[in-house]
Amino acid sequence: MPTSTVELSGHIIDSMMLPRIFDAIMDLGGSFRIEEFRVGQSQDEPSYTRIALTHDSDAGLEAIVAACQQQGAVQVVPVAVRTEPAPRDGVFPDSFYSTSNQPTQVNAGDRWLDVEDIEMDCGIVVSDGRARCVAVSEVRGGQAVVVGHDGIRVRPLERSRNREIFGFMTSQVSSEKPKHLVIRELAETMGEIHGRGGRIAFVGGPAIIHTGAGVHLSRLIRDGWIDVLFAGNALAAHDIESQFFGTSLGIDLRNGLPIEAGHEHHIRAINRIRASGGIAASVEQGELRAGVMYEATRRGIATVLAGSVRDDGPLPEVVTDMVEAQRQMRAALHGVELCIMCATMLHAIATGNLLAAAVKTVCVDINPAVVTKLADRGSSQTLGLVTDVESFLRELSECLPA
Amino acid sequence: MPTSTVELSGHIIDSMMLPRIFDAIMDLGGSFRIEEFRVGQSQDEPSYTRIALTHDSDAGLEAIVAACQQQGAVQVVPVAVRTEPAPRDGVFPDSFYSTSNQPTQVNAGDRWLDVEDIEMDCGIVVSDGRARCVAVSEVRGGQAVVVGHDGIRVRPLERSRNREIFGFMTSQVSSEKPKHLVIRELAETMGEIHGRGGRIAFVGGPAIIHTGAGVHLSRLIRDGWIDVLFAGNALAAHDIESQFFGTSLGIDLRNGLPIEAGHEHHIRAINRIRASGGIAASVEQGELRAGVMYEATRRGIATVLAGSVRDDGPLPEVVTDMVEAQRQMRAALHGVELCIMCATMLHAIATGNLLAAAVKTVCVDINPAVVTKLADRGSSQTLGLVTDVESFLRELSECLPA
Amino acid sequence: MPTSTVELSGHIIDSMMLPRIFDAIMDLGGSFRIEEFRVGQSQDEPSYTRIALTHDSDAGLEAIVAACQQQGAVQVVPVAVRTEPAPRDGVFPDSFYSTSNQPTQVNAGDRWLDVEDIEMDCGIVVSDGRARCVAVSEVRGGQAVVVGHDGIRVRPLERSRNREIFGFMTSQVSSEKPKHLVIRELAETMGEIHGRGGRIAFVGGPAIIHTGAGVHLSRLIRDGWIDVLFAGNALAAHDIESQFFGTSLGIDLRNGLPIEAGHEHHIRAINRIRASGGIAASVEQGELRAGVMYEATRRGIATVLAGSVRDDGPLPEVVTDMVEAQRQMRAALHGVELCIMCATMLHAIATGNLLAAAVKTVCVDINPAVVTKLADRGSSQTLGLVTDVESFLRELSECLPA
Amino acid sequence: MPTSTVELSGHIIDSMMLPRIFDAIMDLGGSFRIEEFRVGQSQDEPSYTRIALTHDSDAGLEAIVAACQQQGAVQVVPVAVRTEPAPRDGVFPDSFYSTSNQPTQVNAGDRWLDVEDIEMDCGIVVSDGRARCVAVSEVRGGQAVVVGHDGIRVRPLERSRNREIFGFMTSQVSSEKPKHLVIRELAETMGEIHGRGGRIAFVGGPAIIHTGAGVHLSRLIRDGWIDVLFAGNALAAHDIESQFFGTSLGIDLRNGLPIEAGHEHHIRAINRIRASGGIAASVEQGELRAGVMYEATRRGIATVLAGSVRDDGPLPEVVTDMVEAQRQMRAALHGVELCIMCATMLHAIATGNLLAAAVKTVCVDINPAVVTKLADRGSSQTLGLVTDVESFLRELSECLPA
Repeated sequence: MPTSTVELSGHIIDSMMLPRIFDAIMDLGGSFRIEEFRVGQSQDEPSYTRIALTHDSDAGLEAIVAACQQQGAVQVVPVAVRTEPAPRDGVFPDSFYSTSNQPTQVNAGDRWLDVEDIEMDCGIVVSDGRARCVAVSEVRGGQAVVVGHDGIRVRPLERSRNREIFGFMTSQVSSEKPKHLVIRELAETMGEIHGRGGRIAFVGGPAIIHTGAGVHLSRLIRDGWIDVLFAGNALAAHDIESQFFGTSLGIDLRNGLPIEAGHEHHIRAINRIRASGGIAASVEQGELRAGVMYEATRRGIATVLAGSVRDDGPLPEVVTDMVEAQRQMRAALHGVELCIMCATMLHAIATGNLLAAAVKTVCVDINPAVVTKLADRGSSQTLGLVTDVESFLRELSECLPA
Repeated sequence: MPTSTVELSGHIIDSMMLPRIFDAIMDLGGSFRIEEFRVGQSQDEPSYTRIALTHDSDAGLEAIVAACQQQGAVQVVPVAVRTEPAPRDGVFPDSFYSTSNQPTQVNAGDRWLDVEDIEMDCGIVVSDGRARCVAVSEVRGGQAVVVGHDGIRVRPLERSRNREIFGFMTSQVSSEKPKHLVIRELAETMGEIHGRGGRIAFVGGPAIIHTGAGVHLSRLIRDGWIDVLFAGNALAAHDIESQFFGTSLGIDLRNGLPIEAGHEHHIRAINRIRASGGIAASVEQGELRAGVMYEATRRGIATVLAGSVRDDGPLPEVVTDMVEAQRQMRAALHGVELCIMCATMLHAIATGNLLAAAVKTVCVDINPAVVTKLADRGSSQTLGLVTDVESFLRELSECLPA
Repeated sequence: MPTSTVELSGHIIDSMMLPRIFDAIMDLGGSFRIEEFRVGQSQDEPSYTRIALTHDSDAGLEAIVAACQQQGAVQVVPVAVRTEPAPRDGVFPDSFYSTSNQPTQVNAGDRWLDVEDIEMDCGIVVSDGRARCVAVSEVRGGQAVVVGHDGIRVRPLERSRNREIFGFMTSQVSSEKPKHLVIRELAETMGEIHGRGGRIAFVGGPAIIHTGAGVHLSRLIRDGWIDVLFAGNALAAHDIESQFFGTSLGIDLRNGLPIEAGHEHHIRAINRIRASGGIAASVEQGELRAGVMYEATRRGIATVLAGSVRDDGPLPEVVTDMVEAQRQMRAALHGVELCIMCATMLHAIATGNLLAAAVKTVCVDINPAVVTKLADRGSSQTLGLVTDVESFLRELSECLPA
Repeated sequence: MPTSTVELSGHIIDSMMLPRIFDAIMDLGGSFRIEEFRVGQSQDEPSYTRIALTHDSDAGLEAIVAACQQQGAVQVVPVAVRTEPAPRDGVFPDSFYSTSNQPTQVNAGDRWLDVEDIEMDCGIVVSDGRARCVAVSEVRGGQAVVVGHDGIRVRPLERSRNREIFGFMTSQVSSEKPKHLVIRELAETMGEIHGRGGRIAFVGGPAIIHTGAGVHLSRLIRDGWIDVLFAGNALAAHDIESQFFGTSLGIDLRNGLPIEAGHEHHIRAINRIRASGGIAASVEQGELRAGVMYEATRRGIATVLAGSVRDDGPLPEVVTDMVEAQRQMRAALHGVELCIMCATMLHAIATGNLLAAAVKTVCVDINPAVVTKLADRGSSQTLGLVTDVESFLRELSECLPA
């Protein structure tokens, strides 16, 4: 019967690696034999195990090995990674290795190469002694794309022994938690990241403007706390509407009352910016003088407004082609260590798809379903907060120095 | 064909009375003829109409008259109210008049009597020149209970011409509204009510404690802002747990992390209070020294802890009989002009059932469905806020002087 | 003081036109005087009123007239519509008239022109004796665009006297309603529409596939019940995944259990279709042999797959440019009388933005918030159903003959 | 330093016992040393470990031992269980052992006694060679109540190696799963349970009646599929309203339309049953002739209608005292192997509090939050279904023979 041997070390019991491997083997109809097992005798010592895997078909065995690799196991007799040329632009070989967002290495024969720019649901292109993670829309015909599961090593982030704010809420998202301490700790993390030259991304939806939280986000951008801004046509349009008309979706932001014909304001604001030639032009012409988009333009932070099929207008800066929008977002995310996502499911999931598991992620929404959905998408360090976005941004702003 | 004539005056077009009456007549298969119609020529003048109603059966006509009465119409030729004796304790005559929570009068022949203590889904008992609203569980055999729809006049609260915070959100509950201004206005309303000797009730659920908002509620009670407190076993138990163990449902309130075996704390807290002989005894003995229940006990405000079938323990002060709990709640609500309901569906609906439509109601929950459900239950002056209860109570506390 | 006179006829009281006009006038700080009022004396007779409007500024008066027009009032002395040339491609004149989705006419001096292809948040271009509704991204520099509110007549759909399934749930979306009768009535409506040569559009999200309802939708398309299909990359990718691998998002559709490495299936399915050259090519090559996309391709119905920024791949048929996607959707909607939207917020709102108010709309989702959001967006004939999409499609399929 | 040694055997790695124990030790500030570790070499062999626990305080050590016991570890040198007399009726000793709902044993010196009627958040009374689980409201002064953690053995249910419908959805409740197969498997489980003489309980809310699913539930009761029925005043009142008036909450169940004055029907129905002397009397008198309560009465199944503070009336059979209601529910649950909970959060949680972990539980609700909340409450064998209750009961009824 086809057999292969893998080994695994680290905090393999309490980081759940081993239980998950046992689960996977049995789900796939295989069997295993523990050849060696040394348990760390205290909490600081790593454990080690060597496991012989068996399945009655080669394909089954390969699936088991692949599943064990996803949990961090490596084959005892390492084999080199295999590649095949991409058959055409935009198409992978049929048996391409589909990436996770965990740190990954490929065995180039003589040494292990780190896969650069790791992102989920992509392929790996190997060339010139480098391994790069590439989306299917970006691959070029003839590039060497990794196929099968040989010669691959995934290093899942281990659960931290010290419980931190990131991660602890993943499994139990709740609106019933004291959150001011969490926000204070988040502010400290932001200070640390900027202190070491890391970058912070912010992904936001239009409810930020509707709830009157635009002033807090503007202030964070003005004072340099945000390096990357991702949003859609709606956030920008309502932000600009609020500057031109004092309303958001036609609701007066001073008293929360609807204004007659106010629902037209957003399309009038969009038209006015189109007439000016765009947001940047409007800022330059002194027409747009405050707000989120004004501050982002003034400070020149990396901004991607990604379109969607429900947009009105849209504003000239909105990227209407989705493949191009993803390309710009990928480029902007280099060096980002923290990503704060507020009140947007579409843009948050889009960004989550592009993030490595090592990037800390904060997801804030008043709807627990959104927070759960994001927490489930594989970022290892997610902090979910079910709360009012206005309260969150106000408190965060209060915790951050100018 | 059976015919009856009703008349209607006031802002009958824009307060929706007339459209609703036309709807009801047609739904019930009747027809109408406008005999007179005088429209107020400007926005300050009331309008008047007299309408002849026809239906091909007496029962149908009675149903139409009843529906018109619910909207404020009165029969042109008033007839005296009819009563029948209650057949037994706890039972109304079969054709009893079922009340709404709107201001209601009955025609006692020589004059109109205001129905006292109006509350929805009850009957009206007439005796000694008074008309009282009585729940079915409270009626005594032989009491004169109003039957049919003759001699009844309902005076629905007219929609205010000046848009106020109460009412304006009823139809469009939203988490996407600026709420700080609304809270400031609510604080002003609280000051006015206390200024004129009115009372304020607070109905709360355990999420107040879980989110760390217990300190804000304690402070409101300590400073005299709350006159009546309704809650269940859970709010009291977790409040006391937080005083004895620093946790709520086993979650450490300082850092939001679960404490090993912390889930036992609430039942240990309950047992300790049972050992002391109750919350009041525990306060007296110096054991319970802070928190919501401590402040409510110290200040001696009217408090009803109503039990539920999912309670652990319960605490000795919890009223375990539901008919008795409703009786105590009814008594405590006399003179209440404002009722603030936070993070509890069960107790909020229970209280809503007992309130007259004229009582202003604020409903705060992070779940829009709860807010909608309450706003739909017939209180004419409801303010719905979809937000975090901790943020709400903190901001409200900041707006209210000591 | 600036004054204007408008008149209004029809079921102006019970269709809420008049109450809404009074509201609007007062919200905008104006005043009114009823010059004439003839109320329909029975339910079949229309009413008529003539109202003099006053405001202390010209701009205020114009806003009031505009608001009255939105409710169907017309100026007593009609004036011709005014236009200005669009300053550039993609830009309206600043004071352009922003459309609603209600039937609208413009006064071309000698006669009233119906505005063709009415859609909300657009402008009106007048040329060659025709008036057309045009999106801001479609307008060409120099075209005559309607400005201001003169010479415009909106004819809001009156509420039907006979309560039908369409409309009756708008205000009270609920999961607690008997729905089998509603579905049966919907099936009858579908038969009637096809009987008179009308078209039916279907807008769907990927939960249709995840819940195993793909077979029901496939069957509806195969038997000719659907003329237009709008969806995104996800529905198509998971439909094809289910044909190639028997899974949807990696969940085995036979037993609901996750398959090891199954989460890769959707990206493998996308890659395989990219390799074949697209969905149509895959069908032609005999590779894709069943399912929603197969049936839509075989029958050649109008299909638009609109991309989004969170897409993987995407599939070659997905339109990645959002302005182009809207253009194709607009074209496909000609002649559509019924639009069924299932389990998708993004595509449902996108489609709702393009629909005239006269198109009947059914919105099905297990999340009441989605149904409410759609019902609120101005379609006059919306049926909201909070239910499981699999149950809905199965029952609908059972009610429709082959 | 205080030290204790525990041992653990079984599928301790993949059933998560060991990872949870390591977590607990570190959370509590203790340390451990693995003294022996024998891993099962294949999937069928159990593993064994012996662990020395250390903490710098006796109290800390006791907490660690207690936490390990909750996961199934036992002290290597067993000590007898300790008891103290209850200080008064309704009060436990302060350091009482608070139960989980997992199978539990106490060491009576010479042998291990199974704790009877295990239920969460209770105490254990030892007398006459028996150990019984007792609620705090039921304990009598002087009874010997277990204190501390010595001499206690918890045997958590191990995760089944064969994935079954029960359990597999616990962590990933979803509305996006194919559910017809799940319902078919549930029907088979019901047949098996009745085949071996087990009992089935049903807990339901009023949405069953509102959605028109009352006929399906009636049919299940009539054909003997339900042995125990728990509900509140609302389900019974609306069931009876639907029999007397054809409505539920005033909505006509034939067409889903509101009936004028229909909202009074429920209070009229309640009054009529009160007049008859109760539900059973009404059935006997031939007044109530169909529906859920009729069938339950006719068949004489164990029924508890537990009151709540929001009840109107209530119906005479409703138990208004909550301590008494829990007592009756506990008694009715003896021998129940499966509990189906539909569309009720209050009664489902109340029942969940009383159930042993070994009882299979199905929770059906259209709101995912309810399903999650129940799945989180500690039943080891929970099946969560997010779906329409009408669809669920109709499909379940179709799968079960008469």
